[in-house]
Amino acid sequence: MARPTPLSGFPELLPAQRHVEAQVVDTLRSTFELHGFVGIETRVVEPLDRLAKGGEIDKEIYVLRRLQAEEGEGDSGLGLHFDLTVPFARYVLENAGKLDFPFRRYQIQPAWRGERPQEGRYRQFTQADIDVVGHGELPFHHDIEVMRVMVEALSRLPLPPLSFQLNNRKLIQGFYRGLGLTDLTAAIRVIDKLDKLPPEVVADQLVELADATPEQAERCLELATIRVADTSFVDRVRALGVKDELLDVGLAELAAVVEGCAATAGGQVTVEANLRIARGLDYYTGTVVEIFMSGYERLKSVGGGGRYDALADDGKTTYPGVGVSFGVSRTLIPLIAEGVLTSSRSVPSAVLVALVEEESRGTSDAVATALRANGVPCEVAPAPQKFGKQIRFAERRGIPFVWFPPADQNSAEGHQVKDIRSGEQVGADPATWTPPTEDLTPSVTSTRVTTKEHP
Amino acid sequence: MARPTPLSGFPELLPAQRHVEAQVVDTLRSTFELHGFVGIETRVVEPLDRLAKGGEIDKEIYVLRRLQAEEGEGDSGLGLHFDLTVPFARYVLENAGKLDFPFRRYQIQPAWRGERPQEGRYRQFTQADIDVVGHGELPFHHDIEVMRVMVEALSRLPLPPLSFQLNNRKLIQGFYRGLGLTDLTAAIRVIDKLDKLPPEVVADQLVELADATPEQAERCLELATIRVADTSFVDRVRALGVKDELLDVGLAELAAVVEGCAATAGGQVTVEANLRIARGLDYYTGTVVEIFMSGYERLKSVGGGGRYDALADDGKTTYPGVGVSFGVSRTLIPLIAEGVLTSSRSVPSAVLVALVEEESRGTSDAVATALRANGVPCEVAPAPQKFGKQIRFAERRGIPFVWFPPADQNSAEGHQVKDIRSGEQVGADPATWTPPTEDLTPSVTSTRVTTKEHP
Repeated sequence: MARPTPLSGFPELLPAQRHVEAQVVDTLRSTFELHGFVGIETRVVEPLDRLAKGGEIDKEIYVLRRLQAEEGEGDSGLGLHFDLTVPFARYVLENAGKLDFPFRRYQIQPAWRGERPQEGRYRQFTQADIDVVGHGELPFHHDIEVMRVMVEALSRLPLPPLSFQLNNRKLIQGFYRGLGLTDLTAAIRVIDKLDKLPPEVVADQLVELADATPEQAERCLELATIRVADTSFVDRVRALGVKDELLDVGLAELAAVVEGCAATAGGQVTVEANLRIARGLDYYTGTVVEIFMSGYERLKSVGGGGRYDALADDGKTTYPGVGVSFGVSRTLIPLIAEGVLTSSRSVPSAVLVALVEEESRGTSDAVATALRANGVPCEVAPAPQKFGKQIRFAERRGIPFVWFPPADQNSAEGHQVKDIRSGEQVGADPATWTPPTEDLTPSVTSTRVTTKEHP
Repeated sequence: MARPTPLSGFPELLPAQRHVEAQVVDTLRSTFELHGFVGIETRVVEPLDRLAKGGEIDKEIYVLRRLQAEEGEGDSGLGLHFDLTVPFARYVLENAGKLDFPFRRYQIQPAWRGERPQEGRYRQFTQADIDVVGHGELPFHHDIEVMRVMVEALSRLPLPPLSFQLNNRKLIQGFYRGLGLTDLTAAIRVIDKLDKLPPEVVADQLVELADATPEQAERCLELATIRVADTSFVDRVRALGVKDELLDVGLAELAAVVEGCAATAGGQVTVEANLRIARGLDYYTGTVVEIFMSGYERLKSVGGGGRYDALADDGKTTYPGVGVSFGVSRTLIPLIAEGVLTSSRSVPSAVLVALVEEESRGTSDAVATALRANGVPCEVAPAPQKFGKQIRFAERRGIPFVWFPPADQNSAEGHQVKDIRSGEQVGADPATWTPPTEDLTPSVTSTRVTTKEHP
């Protein structure tokens, strides 16, 4: 069989690289759980009528068909989910009677989109989502909670600086309404192009497509340029002279979220009010956020989310939610590919137990069993090569310690353990020896390299 | 939108149930890593020419197609993997130059088969596989290692008693050859029916389909009835009077595996030599194993594996392997559905921090932050209801402790924590208090219920 080649859009990781991803996922999990979020997993398929809503995404949905379908059987009517929100909303509706609300959940799973692969965009990609969902209502303080939990979780990761850019749909809509605009949806759609088009063109389009006067367009642009790391945006918006009740609510909510995250942010993760963030035409109704990674602006946002007053609805009850999603693959795959994130070894083993001769494998196995009883990951050398070769075997894998059992396998004395980085070798008892904590498991290192922007 | 209903063959778990599965997976992971096995993940799709080999499984493969495929685009040529061996073999070939051999890996992922759903058989199901793969050669001692690691991993799970039933293809083939049979494949295929057909019928079929004499058929059945928990099978096989070199190798290997697992087995997991285990017509060439769960024989085997001398081959190098696979979904879904395995709570939180009034949410948040700094998962009550209601909120979720901040939010004194199971309430400092270790995370309980066999 010929040597297979990678499939475009379906990145896979080598063992040491996969360790980086696994450690990131473990850190996310443990932070989410510290905050009482429950981990769930949904099946990877949904009925097509739940996935395909006539939007842009429809053409990227993968549909399943059995290879040897019976005559006339056709497609299964099932497609792979393209995000974790659609399956979660369905899960909430399906199990509403068995869930306790407010329901906090996290979900870390792959999703699939048949789009053209490029850096940061894959056909299979892992997302980490957290949401809080209410039954009928969901108090605003959960908006603060969700953002704060994701800020804390991402602060614990070895990533380049991240910025949470926050806004509020009520603020935008209230401002536009108070300004006298009538087609709010059209205005949001146009303002959303500010990262692609120059401000003059956006102003012209506001006049053309959203029925704004040139003066109203000017005000919209002024709003959209406000970007501060504290709550001073409130005064700056007020200074624009627009009055509206919904605007007041939006300003108060955004100020509360920015302030609520301030204590948790700092260091690698910062929080800003950025009044041009709208998150397109999605279903958001209040808080919105997009997350950007410094030096990786070419990836666009590496996460985002917000408040939606109807995550799900079964005709009788509405389930409002607030959530945020972090693109695990979108963030990590480029960092791993560039060597920014690396693992200290390619195997979990902290110790290679050397083998004196094939006949004494039992002795080496017994050492390994004793070490494992104390939680020390280890492996026994596959063959009784010269010790120099066994040490190089460990070195190639990044295993920091080599254990030498006594040459006389009937002796309990004479065990030696060598730190192959320093060369230091000491006598040790397999029943009690443990490595320094930092050597127990592979560690992830972040080398901040100078990255070149793609054209 | 109408309330959705479950999809047959795609089981999903409620939060407390999912915790059982997550804990099982975590235990498997940590045991595999203690033995130096590397965790990898492969993409869920493979090119169809790697999946479809003209076997029985072909008709169960799910093929992907984009929902709105371009004119003439047709299928993607990709299918969902139906096990973790095919993608692993491809991964080894694709990355052979970047892997260190012998390569120990574990892989815990879902797989998909479009078969008729029934208890223990799902269209999406999670497997946990471990394999050791060599470059060109792989010494026999890895057979012992792999079986021992899986015995140890499963011993740590809260499952009903499990039995590893071991055999060896060399033993079977050597015995048949020494007996004078010529069509060994046909003989294995017939003997494999012993769990469905009475021995007389199998004997007849050996004569009809495998060209055996009635006396040879009798010997084959005698071999297949040998089942012991130690190495006494060696003498019993020898007593049948068949002589063959390959048989000698098989007997020695099987004895070494049974003996090698003996020290690790015991308690909930036992190991037996069962000379009728053949694992069908699969690619096994030496050690074979099937795992059965006591009281759940209706599920057939819950795991299996063995030695294959050519896991992968790129025309230049052969990669022999030995591995064993554990059916996570097949085992857990029935146990969870019957209530045999349950979790002590539906949320990770060990503590509910009560809320005195909405205005003092900051005080309760500060308590939660202090507890989390010591690794205590907790959540703050969603609303300032009467304390009795807040306690019942905790009770419904199985949260063992409720924390009462002082009524005067400016006071650092007066914090109280209540164990709502015993009713005991004591003064405590959020900066230092931690619950007993057994209450820190939800615990999984196994209630051995009397199960009724399905007809």
